Amino acid sequence: MSWNSFGHVFRFTTWGESHGPAIGAVVDGCPPGIALAEADIQPWLDERRPGASPLTSPRREPDRVRILSGVFEGLTTGTPISLTIENEDARPADYAGMPHRAGHADRAYEAKYGVRDPRGGGRASARETAARVAAGAVARLVIPEVTIAARPVEVGGSEDEAAWDRLIEAAQAGGSSLGAVVECVAKGVPAGWGAPVYAKLDADFAAALMSINAVKAVEIGAGFDAARRAGEDNAGRAMAGGILGGIATGEPIVLRAAFKPTASVAALGVKGRHDPCVGMRGAPVVEAMVALVLADHKLLHRAQCGDDG
Amino acid sequence: MSWNSFGHVFRFTTWGESHGPAIGAVVDGCPPGIALAEADIQPWLDERRPGASPLTSPRREPDRVRILSGVFEGLTTGTPISLTIENEDARPADYAGMPHRAGHADRAYEAKYGVRDPRGGGRASARETAARVAAGAVARLVIPEVTIAARPVEVGGSEDEAAWDRLIEAAQAGGSSLGAVVECVAKGVPAGWGAPVYAKLDADFAAALMSINAVKAVEIGAGFDAARRAGEDNAGRAMAGGILGGIATGEPIVLRAAFKPTASVAALGVKGRHDPCVGMRGAPVVEAMVALVLADHKLLHRAQCGDDG
Amino acid sequence: MSWNSFGHVFRFTTWGESHGPAIGAVVDGCPPGIALAEADIQPWLDERRPGASPLTSPRREPDRVRILSGVFEGLTTGTPISLTIENEDARPADYAGMPHRAGHADRAYEAKYGVRDPRGGGRASARETAARVAAGAVARLVIPEVTIAARPVEVGGSEDEAAWDRLIEAAQAGGSSLGAVVECVAKGVPAGWGAPVYAKLDADFAAALMSINAVKAVEIGAGFDAARRAGEDNAGRAMAGGILGGIATGEPIVLRAAFKPTASVAALGVKGRHDPCVGMRGAPVVEAMVALVLADHKLLHRAQCGDDG
Amino acid sequence: MSWNSFGHVFRFTTWGESHGPAIGAVVDGCPPGIALAEADIQPWLDERRPGASPLTSPRREPDRVRILSGVFEGLTTGTPISLTIENEDARPADYAGMPHRAGHADRAYEAKYGVRDPRGGGRASARETAARVAAGAVARLVIPEVTIAARPVEVGGSEDEAAWDRLIEAAQAGGSSLGAVVECVAKGVPAGWGAPVYAKLDADFAAALMSINAVKAVEIGAGFDAARRAGEDNAGRAMAGGILGGIATGEPIVLRAAFKPTASVAALGVKGRHDPCVGMRGAPVVEAMVALVLADHKLLHRAQCGDDG
Repeated sequence: MSWNSFGHVFRFTTWGESHGPAIGAVVDGCPPGIALAEADIQPWLDERRPGASPLTSPRREPDRVRILSGVFEGLTTGTPISLTIENEDARPADYAGMPHRAGHADRAYEAKYGVRDPRGGGRASARETAARVAAGAVARLVIPEVTIAARPVEVGGSEDEAAWDRLIEAAQAGGSSLGAVVECVAKGVPAGWGAPVYAKLDADFAAALMSINAVKAVEIGAGFDAARRAGEDNAGRAMAGGILGGIATGEPIVLRAAFKPTASVAALGVKGRHDPCVGMRGAPVVEAMVALVLADHKLLHRAQCGDDG
Repeated sequence: MSWNSFGHVFRFTTWGESHGPAIGAVVDGCPPGIALAEADIQPWLDERRPGASPLTSPRREPDRVRILSGVFEGLTTGTPISLTIENEDARPADYAGMPHRAGHADRAYEAKYGVRDPRGGGRASARETAARVAAGAVARLVIPEVTIAARPVEVGGSEDEAAWDRLIEAAQAGGSSLGAVVECVAKGVPAGWGAPVYAKLDADFAAALMSINAVKAVEIGAGFDAARRAGEDNAGRAMAGGILGGIATGEPIVLRAAFKPTASVAALGVKGRHDPCVGMRGAPVVEAMVALVLADHKLLHRAQCGDDG
Repeated sequence: MSWNSFGHVFRFTTWGESHGPAIGAVVDGCPPGIALAEADIQPWLDERRPGASPLTSPRREPDRVRILSGVFEGLTTGTPISLTIENEDARPADYAGMPHRAGHADRAYEAKYGVRDPRGGGRASARETAARVAAGAVARLVIPEVTIAARPVEVGGSEDEAAWDRLIEAAQAGGSSLGAVVECVAKGVPAGWGAPVYAKLDADFAAALMSINAVKAVEIGAGFDAARRAGEDNAGRAMAGGILGGIATGEPIVLRAAFKPTASVAALGVKGRHDPCVGMRGAPVVEAMVALVLADHKLLHRAQCGDDG
Repeated sequence: MSWNSFGHVFRFTTWGESHGPAIGAVVDGCPPGIALAEADIQPWLDERRPGASPLTSPRREPDRVRILSGVFEGLTTGTPISLTIENEDARPADYAGMPHRAGHADRAYEAKYGVRDPRGGGRASARETAARVAAGAVARLVIPEVTIAARPVEVGGSEDEAAWDRLIEAAQAGGSSLGAVVECVAKGVPAGWGAPVYAKLDADFAAALMSINAVKAVEIGAGFDAARRAGEDNAGRAMAGGILGGIATGEPIVLRAAFKPTASVAALGVKGRHDPCVGMRGAPVVEAMVALVLADHKLLHRAQCGDDG
């Protein structure tokens, strides 16, 4: 929750541009004594990887993660865990001389920094999310009591899963792109994690998911639908999504994030590689952010209330 | 973004329970030399006050703010501004011996803290928001270039403004309550405020609004509707809501927050006073949180990029 | 460690000017279920109070603390604890029209803020430390396993305790003032509290003590004398002062802080009331800051390593 | 000021163990548009490097820094700057099976983390300071108005510079080691940088210097000597060291840090390579930390008070 860091006690910092030599994350505050190897992280990166299906961007770097610190003889030591992923397939030439892309963050960056890095979106690129996924893989090991599962529930406005491939192919063929809604359910979160006001569990989830590039909306539990219900329904906790007053109730936590379609479609004459539906790749990133928030709140709760609190 | 504090550089901390002797906020990092008196804060509190209309909770304390520090001869001095509001009309007896209220945060608090404070919802009470409104009034003075206006756009599922009074009266008569959606537009935010990753302007807005009691969803710009559109629409910035890549574009910023209905309806046999539609009172709180985020980002941007950045 | 807040997890914020209506502290992140009443705080304030002896400043307000939030039926609830102390004896008239006091922070404040609040030193006044003492009294209850004792060990350059009264009286009579060194020993700190790098226990102690007005130097263990020893001595831990690599060893922690003499002596024609030896009153403030750092590190250690860590 | 991060707005995070594959720093919040190349950082690392003189540890890795992010076409972009240095000469075998070293942080680490990484001191190693020096080189570019110069002023208790070589050689020959005092002067710091209470310039300096491995004491201005003076001296600012009330006065800032001798002397039968006088190498690290604090406070001051504030 500072520039490029997130978390209160279990904190991580990400760095790197999509077309520089590497990207990475530093995970700080990780408990010691947790078994951690590159093989614990790699599968999550492979799942996130573009090019894993014909329906996503053809960029194909292997995304090999390296652990550079914080682990000794297979166990975390409690010191910062530095994770790096080299960008083997960077092609900045694709972007040379290209104009500002409409709907892209380039112009906003230039307004802020007075410096323009046209290479693949800079920090606003989907590639930054690989560092989150790597950090999230560490977070998962901190919260073995929790299972987290995210999946698209809506693509291009359709909730019919069977139709999605066709919709995406059509968008791709037409140089267009589609939005998506990703839903995430976290089970096993003990009642009591969270905090009542500005470190509310739901506020941290909202920040975590809204910080993902392309996300424009976040819901907890019934979300916007809650605004359409009457108080009787609320009594049944149906709306809560596992969080009341910022604190986990022990029931499954339910979150949704809306991904807008990418703007840099072929119709705009841009040669850079982009997804026809970035939301399809959003699920592993959403899971990673949810894991990172929960690992942080596990530690935060333990800080204030002790192991049995 | 720690327990009861929010903000990076322009930070505020709120404290107080709804039925204790007082509530308050400490605003830290405020620029010096800004004209500030209690009269600059009081009108915003009056607007938020329950009992301002027959359609909101009959609790009627006057909410008089006092400035206890940080101002000398009518100007801010750059030191922390302590704001307090006495709870003149606290009636904890209403809650004595009452059971856990379904859908309320009481049980979550007890799970966390092992201590139960049944008096009017403790920190999860709507009363905590008075402290935010007071802090927000200070924030507004830090960003005179910006105008912020929030209003309900949907009550009980209806977008027909003319129908809301009737819907709320019916809910109240039936011991029920209604949800609402509040929309906020901030104009005049200079292009460049914000940051690309975890201190994204939209991520901070999401945390700020989701930290408000009863809010279950937050949208920026097209929000969930963005997930239903194609990339061509994105090109026109229609979806952006004034923020791209976490950074303000200079266009109006558009946000929406969904308020669930309060749970403690008469049907549950609870004697405490509560709103039939807490969302109706949400607009001043949303405005305050938006002002607090923007004041913080004005200072944060100036830190990194200078006055002309 | 932001403007007016200190602490990672157990955090406190102080506010208030010496000649405004009140000063106060908000203690955040306190564990729930701790017995806390005003009577637990008041004795520490009484000990710190100026005017407790003829050798300190004649300012004589009673320093009555009030707890405004965070406690229910005598137990902390886990929510922020707001502590206030009214300034009953403020006499700003003493400072009206007075020039900048040499060696005082007034001019530095004016350089920073462009606003001058000449009333008794503003935030740089020794009075701000009353809020720290109040917060420290809460911190002590969080760490019942630790005993903390500070006392002056040097006054006006003399280590002879019997000579101090005479030295101070002479300074007072001559319109002068004296510096002092305060030593603090904390016993019972479990091995393991602390952290290796920027949240080192010793780094946090150094910041905590150096943040006290008038403190110009801080030592841990052998301190400056360590620089004069050979490595053989180091082997015996004689130098460590109970901290190695930023982490408590389980041995008593030994700290020293040097207080400069106050500058606003009678010789300068200033009418405001000031101590002939502010360091004589420094011990309760040093104890409070040490308690606040240790309570924070107890929670921080528990966050990362668990109760048994 | 969290685990492995330091700074309010201009923040950096360091990672890496002395005998792992690499160490590094991530510098966040750096203003955009600053010319930065590896050649701006390398000289400072070369100066710090062990083995630069026969009087320091014979470890001889070249300490080549690489910039992995945050720079485009030779200018900082405002995004995080990732700096890495490979550990080419790591020899963990030196430490295999070695016992806990007396006076070393090993045992403290084990008490905390229950995990022991015996390789060269882990994060408590002097090697961690290379990452600080690299980050400090970036900080220097943020504050071109300031010049910073640190040097040993006392070695093994002697202020006679001419005697130091002989003292260190004797210590080395005898398997012993010596402490040192390093003094740092920062000129050109504008009046007004700093803050009055917990973000006091002197408190941040104290934390920054005390966080350096082996430092046991920190002084500002007259330091401990201030405690031995009378108030008349204070009037002349002689004691202030360029800081009053936590805020820079515009005069040169003077700091001193005491380095204890390393404990792992040959007498203890340890084969790892260590300095006979770690304080001799402390000056570049002290300079780096001072630059990092000042860059942070420049930005922090600008945040609150604007460019002209």
